[in-house]
Amino acid sequence: MKIPPVKGTRDFYPQDMAVRNWIIDGWKQASIRNGFEEYDGPIFEYLKMFQIKSGDEIAEQLFSLTDRGGRELALRPEMTPSLARMVNQRINSLPRPIKWLSVPRLFRAERPQKGRLREFFQWNIDIIGVDDVLADAEVIFCALDYLRGVGLRPNDIVVKISSRKLLAALLKRIGIAEERLDSLYIVLDKKDKLPLETFRQMLSEQVPDVEIADKIQTFMETQAVCDISRVVEPDSEIEQATNELIELFDWLDRMGVGTYCKFDPGIVRGLAYYTGIVYEIYDKASLLRAIGGGGRYDNLLRDFGGPSIPATGFAIGDCVLGILLEEKGLIKPELQKLDYFVVYVEEAYKEAAVKLTMKLRSAGQRADFSYKSTKLSKQLKEASYREAKKCVIIGEEYKSNKLAIKDMATGQQELIELAHFFVDKQNPSETGG
Amino acid sequence: MKIPPVKGTRDFYPQDMAVRNWIIDGWKQASIRNGFEEYDGPIFEYLKMFQIKSGDEIAEQLFSLTDRGGRELALRPEMTPSLARMVNQRINSLPRPIKWLSVPRLFRAERPQKGRLREFFQWNIDIIGVDDVLADAEVIFCALDYLRGVGLRPNDIVVKISSRKLLAALLKRIGIAEERLDSLYIVLDKKDKLPLETFRQMLSEQVPDVEIADKIQTFMETQAVCDISRVVEPDSEIEQATNELIELFDWLDRMGVGTYCKFDPGIVRGLAYYTGIVYEIYDKASLLRAIGGGGRYDNLLRDFGGPSIPATGFAIGDCVLGILLEEKGLIKPELQKLDYFVVYVEEAYKEAAVKLTMKLRSAGQRADFSYKSTKLSKQLKEASYREAKKCVIIGEEYKSNKLAIKDMATGQQELIELAHFFVDKQNPSETGG
Repeated sequence: MKIPPVKGTRDFYPQDMAVRNWIIDGWKQASIRNGFEEYDGPIFEYLKMFQIKSGDEIAEQLFSLTDRGGRELALRPEMTPSLARMVNQRINSLPRPIKWLSVPRLFRAERPQKGRLREFFQWNIDIIGVDDVLADAEVIFCALDYLRGVGLRPNDIVVKISSRKLLAALLKRIGIAEERLDSLYIVLDKKDKLPLETFRQMLSEQVPDVEIADKIQTFMETQAVCDISRVVEPDSEIEQATNELIELFDWLDRMGVGTYCKFDPGIVRGLAYYTGIVYEIYDKASLLRAIGGGGRYDNLLRDFGGPSIPATGFAIGDCVLGILLEEKGLIKPELQKLDYFVVYVEEAYKEAAVKLTMKLRSAGQRADFSYKSTKLSKQLKEASYREAKKCVIIGEEYKSNKLAIKDMATGQQELIELAHFFVDKQNPSETGG
Repeated sequence: MKIPPVKGTRDFYPQDMAVRNWIIDGWKQASIRNGFEEYDGPIFEYLKMFQIKSGDEIAEQLFSLTDRGGRELALRPEMTPSLARMVNQRINSLPRPIKWLSVPRLFRAERPQKGRLREFFQWNIDIIGVDDVLADAEVIFCALDYLRGVGLRPNDIVVKISSRKLLAALLKRIGIAEERLDSLYIVLDKKDKLPLETFRQMLSEQVPDVEIADKIQTFMETQAVCDISRVVEPDSEIEQATNELIELFDWLDRMGVGTYCKFDPGIVRGLAYYTGIVYEIYDKASLLRAIGGGGRYDNLLRDFGGPSIPATGFAIGDCVLGILLEEKGLIKPELQKLDYFVVYVEEAYKEAAVKLTMKLRSAGQRADFSYKSTKLSKQLKEASYREAKKCVIIGEEYKSNKLAIKDMATGQQELIELAHFFVDKQNPSETGG
C-alpha cells in the first residue's frame, strides 16, 4: 500500500535537510551574536489562544484538532501568542530586556502556493521591555546581520519601513474615526498586493469621501519622511511618530545598514496589534512575497492577560527566503564530510576494519566502512562518493601493525604505525564531550 | 485573558531550550560521526499511513485532524512510517546502504505520565539495505557511542537484547501456531512491565496448555544464549537465530561496547513488524521506563508498498533519557557566553556603544550593550549576569580613540587603540559565512 505525503508539506531528504539546517543554523547564529536567547513552545496550543490576537476568523486558517478530553486545540500558525503566554507566565522572574529568539515549525491550512506552504519554519526575534526606537533598530539590524551575512546586498533586498502610529495619527487627523481604523488597515495593507483599480474600489467602499480617500492615497505614496507634512498639517501625534521614524533611520545608518532600508508608508501590516514602527523585507525586484516583517506591539502582553510591557519583533519564514537564496546562488550548506573511510583488501581484514572504524568514532572522528568486502578500487570509489577526507587502507601491512593512510584530495599515501595512529585523536567518550 | 499551555506539552524557556539543544546536538553529532545523514518528514501524514504498521487501534493514540478538503490526517506518533514512505519514493536513486538519522518531534494522545509526554523528541537511526547482523551491531554501537559519550557507564545503563526470530522459531517449535504469534508477542512483551501473577494469568489465557506455557516462561528467564538448547531441542531455525545472537555479541565485544549489553529473552517489542534482533535500553536499576529500543524489520518497506529490503534501526526519546541524565548529574548544556558586553560611562557615549556593538556583531562576535545608561557599576553587573567574557568600556578615553577592555574572569583591564581593536576580528558579512 503506497501512500503519498500530504500536499503543502515537504520531505527533507539529506540534501534538503542540509539546506534547512544551514538556513536555521544561520538564523540561530545571527541571533546569538546579537545577544538573543533561544526558547520554544509546544506545537499545539488551545485554539482560543490564537483567536485573541487574530479574531475568530483565524480558526479557518488553522489546523485544529480535538483531544480525547474534548479540548479544542490548534497547530500553531505563528509564535507570538505562545511567546506572550510564556512571558506572562514568568513576567516577575524574567530579567529585562527579554531578548528571545525562536525557530518554530508553523502550520497554516491554506492552499499551497509558491513561497507559501502548509508547514514551514520561521525565525522569530523579539525584544520585550524596551520602550525605545533603538530596540526596533536593533531587531532590524539583527535580521540584516543574517541576510547580508549570507551574501544578500542592498541591490538584492530592501526593508520597507513605516509607522502604524503615524498612520493612525494621520488617519484620525484627516477625519477617520478611531473605531474604523482596524478595518481600514486591512484594506490599506493590500495596496501593493492588488491592482491599483481594485485597491481604489476597496478604499472608496471604506472611505466614501473622495477628498479623504485621495489624501490617504497621497500619504501612501509619500517617498520621504520629511514629505509627510505636505499631506496634512502635522499635529503633535503625527510629529511624535515622524520623529520616531527619523530617529530609527538615524540608528540604522549608524549601525551600518541604512542602505538596506527605505521609508514606505504602503507598509501597514494587516494585524490590529501593531502600535509603532512596522516593516516588511522584500526582494528588491518585488517579484516574490515578503521575506519577512515585524514591528512594535506594545499592547500584546496585556491582551494576553499580562501587564502592559512594550515589545518589538520580527519573523522571517524559510520558504520565500529559500527561493530568493536559491535564485541568487547563495545556498551553501555545510558538507558533513567523513574524516576517514576505512577500506580493507579482503574479507579477512573486515573485522579489523570494523574495529578501527568504531575506535575512530569513539575518539570523535567521523568514520565509516564498507559493508561489502568488494575490490579495493570499488571501496575507494565509495570513499570518494562519501567525500571522505582520508582513507585508512587495511591490507598485508596490518599484520606488522601498520596502516596505509591515503589523502583523498592529494592522492598521497603514507604508511604509519597503528600505535601512533590514535595518539592525536581526542576521546569524547572519556571526557564526556 | 490568560490561557494555560496544554497538558503534556512543554514550554522551553531559554534554560530548558539549552538542555534540549544539548541533547539533540549530541544525538546528531554521534550519528554523524557514525556515518549517518540527517533527514526529516512532515509533522503530519495521512492517518491511514500510521495504521499500516500498527493497525486501526493506533488511531486512538494519535492526534488526528481533518483538513479543509476532508482528508483525515494525524500528527506523527513515530518516524518509521514516514521513513518507509520516503525511502520507497526514491528507492531506485538512493545509494545503499541508506544510513539515515532523524530527530523528529512526535505526538501521542496519551495521559501524560513520568517520562511520557504528549509531545516529545526522538532520536531515530536506521540502516536500510544491509542483511547482516553487523548492521544491528553498528546501530547499537551508535546508540552507546552517544550514551557513553555523555558519561553513562555500564553500571548506569544496559542494552537488553533478544531475537524475534529466535522467539518465533522457539514458539513454533513448542507447538504455537504461526497465526497466533502476533497476539502472543503483545502478552510476552508485558512480562517485565506487570506483576508476575498478572502476567501468568494473561499468558494462560493465550496458552491454556500448562506445559507449553511453562516452557515459554522458562525460555523467557534464560540467562545466556548457550542455555537456549536446555529449553527445547533446537531445530535449524532456532540454531540460525541463536548463531545470529552469538555473532551480534561478538561484534559488540569487538566494538568495545560488550560490557553494556546483555542477552534478555524478556525483550519482545510489542509491534508485529520486527523480524530479527530486538533490544531495549534501560537504566541499570530498572526504575524508569525504557530509554529506547529497536531492532530489525526486514518487511517494513514492502508493507509500505515498496520492495523487500532489509532494515534495522532504533529510537531513543528525550523524556526518560532526560530524567536519567538529570539524576546522574550529567546534563551539561553549552553556555552561549557573550564575547563582549559594551558599557558606557554616560548617555553621551550611548551612540558610540551601540555602533561598536553592531560592528562587533558584524564581525561575527557575540556582543551586547545595555539599553539603560545607568551607572557603570550597574552595567558591569549586567555584563557579569550575562556571563560576558570581556567588557568594552567607553568613557573619557574614547575621545582620544581608546577603549578600555576588561577581562571579566581575571578582572584585568587594558587600554587599547580603537583602530587596533577590530584588526583580528573575522568579518562574516564580507565572507558570506
